[in-house]
Amino acid sequence: MLRSLPFSSYRTSSGIARKCGHADRPTWARQTRCNSTLANLEASRVQIELTNKPKSRPDLVDLKFGKYFTDHMLTIPWKAESGWGTPKIHPYGPLSIEPSASVFHYAPCLFEGLKAYRDEKGRVTLFRPDMNMKRMNSSAARVALPTFNDDALVELIKQLIRVDNDWVPNKAGYSLYIRPTFIGSQPAIGIAPSSEALLFVICCPVGPYFPKGFKPVALYGTTEYTRAAAGGIGAFKLGANYAPGLVAQKMAEEKGYVQNLWLHGPEHHVTEVGTMNAFAVFKHPDGVTELATPPLDGIILPGVTRDSVLTLARDHALGKAKVPGLTDKLKVSERPFTMREIKEAAEAGTLVEFFGTGTAAVISPVDRIGYLGEDIHIPTGPDGMGPISRGIWQQMVGIQTGAISPHPWSVVVME
Amino acid sequence: MLRSLPFSSYRTSSGIARKCGHADRPTWARQTRCNSTLANLEASRVQIELTNKPKSRPDLVDLKFGKYFTDHMLTIPWKAESGWGTPKIHPYGPLSIEPSASVFHYAPCLFEGLKAYRDEKGRVTLFRPDMNMKRMNSSAARVALPTFNDDALVELIKQLIRVDNDWVPNKAGYSLYIRPTFIGSQPAIGIAPSSEALLFVICCPVGPYFPKGFKPVALYGTTEYTRAAAGGIGAFKLGANYAPGLVAQKMAEEKGYVQNLWLHGPEHHVTEVGTMNAFAVFKHPDGVTELATPPLDGIILPGVTRDSVLTLARDHALGKAKVPGLTDKLKVSERPFTMREIKEAAEAGTLVEFFGTGTAAVISPVDRIGYLGEDIHIPTGPDGMGPISRGIWQQMVGIQTGAISPHPWSVVVME
Repeated sequence: MLRSLPFSSYRTSSGIARKCGHADRPTWARQTRCNSTLANLEASRVQIELTNKPKSRPDLVDLKFGKYFTDHMLTIPWKAESGWGTPKIHPYGPLSIEPSASVFHYAPCLFEGLKAYRDEKGRVTLFRPDMNMKRMNSSAARVALPTFNDDALVELIKQLIRVDNDWVPNKAGYSLYIRPTFIGSQPAIGIAPSSEALLFVICCPVGPYFPKGFKPVALYGTTEYTRAAAGGIGAFKLGANYAPGLVAQKMAEEKGYVQNLWLHGPEHHVTEVGTMNAFAVFKHPDGVTELATPPLDGIILPGVTRDSVLTLARDHALGKAKVPGLTDKLKVSERPFTMREIKEAAEAGTLVEFFGTGTAAVISPVDRIGYLGEDIHIPTGPDGMGPISRGIWQQMVGIQTGAISPHPWSVVVME
Repeated sequence: MLRSLPFSSYRTSSGIARKCGHADRPTWARQTRCNSTLANLEASRVQIELTNKPKSRPDLVDLKFGKYFTDHMLTIPWKAESGWGTPKIHPYGPLSIEPSASVFHYAPCLFEGLKAYRDEKGRVTLFRPDMNMKRMNSSAARVALPTFNDDALVELIKQLIRVDNDWVPNKAGYSLYIRPTFIGSQPAIGIAPSSEALLFVICCPVGPYFPKGFKPVALYGTTEYTRAAAGGIGAFKLGANYAPGLVAQKMAEEKGYVQNLWLHGPEHHVTEVGTMNAFAVFKHPDGVTELATPPLDGIILPGVTRDSVLTLARDHALGKAKVPGLTDKLKVSERPFTMREIKEAAEAGTLVEFFGTGTAAVISPVDRIGYLGEDIHIPTGPDGMGPISRGIWQQMVGIQTGAISPHPWSVVVME
């Protein structure tokens, strides 16, 4: 059942469609992938095949993250000799992939995670999808996969959401989680940049990360494993960063903690909280409150929520856009900090809070860190949050869910 | 077309079949995976479905590595609630995998590479398959995939080779490359140890790595990227180690070199040659020749060829088993060495040779290393090899191809 595009009001201009958009990629990636004779990703070529077997909707109360997928998915093939093929939105179902495909052997695979929200008026929006597309292209270049036109993929994701519109939950705290994925599918096991690839997008309705209010978590400071190193892949959302982290997470659970805290180097610099970015808040003697997160020095994932927290806090500190409830004496830092600084601040009573940020939880407060056999306790308010994260979380969720509207970060999918 | 096992002379004893064989795995892996109520991998359960559409054999002259696969493959499913399922040997063909499968998102994937050789009498053998099985289990545990009975998988691989026996080339220098692969296939995108997995084995006939005699390669000493770090995954044959290396390989090619040389840390310790282990040979003032390779300190892959080179050289040095052509004054070291040591030895004329080792090439001699803008030149003989690698290569290939027979490293598949 093929039919033409139901939402054909937009049209990607050929100028934009040809934009390679990766001047910041390594030279070889540009040379080998930016061949103007190859087809770029074009949203206007999309073909849509609707399911004739719509699934029953899962009960929102029973929702488990990432288990129930919508009726449709988007797939876009790529070949080295011809470029990007025809984007297709079609019924959700298994992929048929050769056992020799590079993804099974050498892990050229990457993903993104973003959410579509339905507001009280029924309008569906995405939160900063341009940031996800930029990072996805950066990840692709890091594993020698082709890059693509950012705008075209956002348009195609919007199409997919429109097709599965009735899967976007109509309930506060719920959303549609969107998972763009990109794999090397070359059917040959020579180790080389994949000559074939498949980009696909699947979606699943998800519930609130903390259904019963914020619940601060206890972290285990991992000294047995490392997440990333200089010259490695820590700054990219590659599959290769995740499976190797499972043993650290499991060890944290065995020791009675909820998640692991990734530390780096002999001084145990704080880097990430499980699969989230890490933030600490310090109170200084001059009365200034400092919101700090490790800098993007190559081993930190450039999180969209991380960037949003920093931007909201900086705009508040600069007086550009006040965040209700936040202190005026706020300093925002991207700087390294060590477990020793965390421990000493906690002992001195100057550690105000500690939290992780990510698309799933937005903000995940921390009340305890197990470190070298001791527990460091971190204050949280009666609502589970701290004085900085509380205000930022409210502002961010307000923008995401349409309560604060219009906002440039909120991209409308359907009015 | 299902039929019973054509080579049913062996039978895995239940004692062996229940052996978990991973006392050296992390505690949690043992706790969660060694549940005796779950089925272990059992070769005797194999089901065989033969193809009714045998492929035409590729011309040996045209063989490209890893592109032409045999008529059959082996697949074995695993589920957390039931353990290892029925091994099946069936016609080679695409896998049907859910788009939510963990392998596409978080890279729980690993592989092995080993070869089956046909000797002059027609006998087919494998080279040290136990080493590959041991490493495969070690890799599996590192990404929270289940472990399995080593012996059972060797038996199943033998079955597969027997079924595709006429694909094992009958020509000197040629062999059947065997690629066991193991992926997490859980159809849910929550980041957790995969609750479902698929182990599969595919095979392809391969030609000699150096069809026209040894050709020494030029390496580019990579200082822009790192392969592995302490606490990471460098010691495991995980997919996650390979796709991230493609950009370093590509950069080496752009700079006019054949492969990249992985360096580590501020002192630029030599670690690996592309996807091979690294060896250097030094001549010392006391007349001793030292064969050195970096130690297995967590960032080096425990290569089967690496271990074989070390063992042959050590047995020679100890007088246990002489390798023809090798100096008697041989010292064998697993020790760190830096690019400074390589450069100084080359300048002093005491660097005897430098080579990579791996299943594909066995030994790959190096005649030049580009390092910080300079080229370090390394001597090679008129045959492209050096005085240590030459003797070891001859011995090793003799064992692999059956010229030196019987040998405990050579495991008979078919008489």
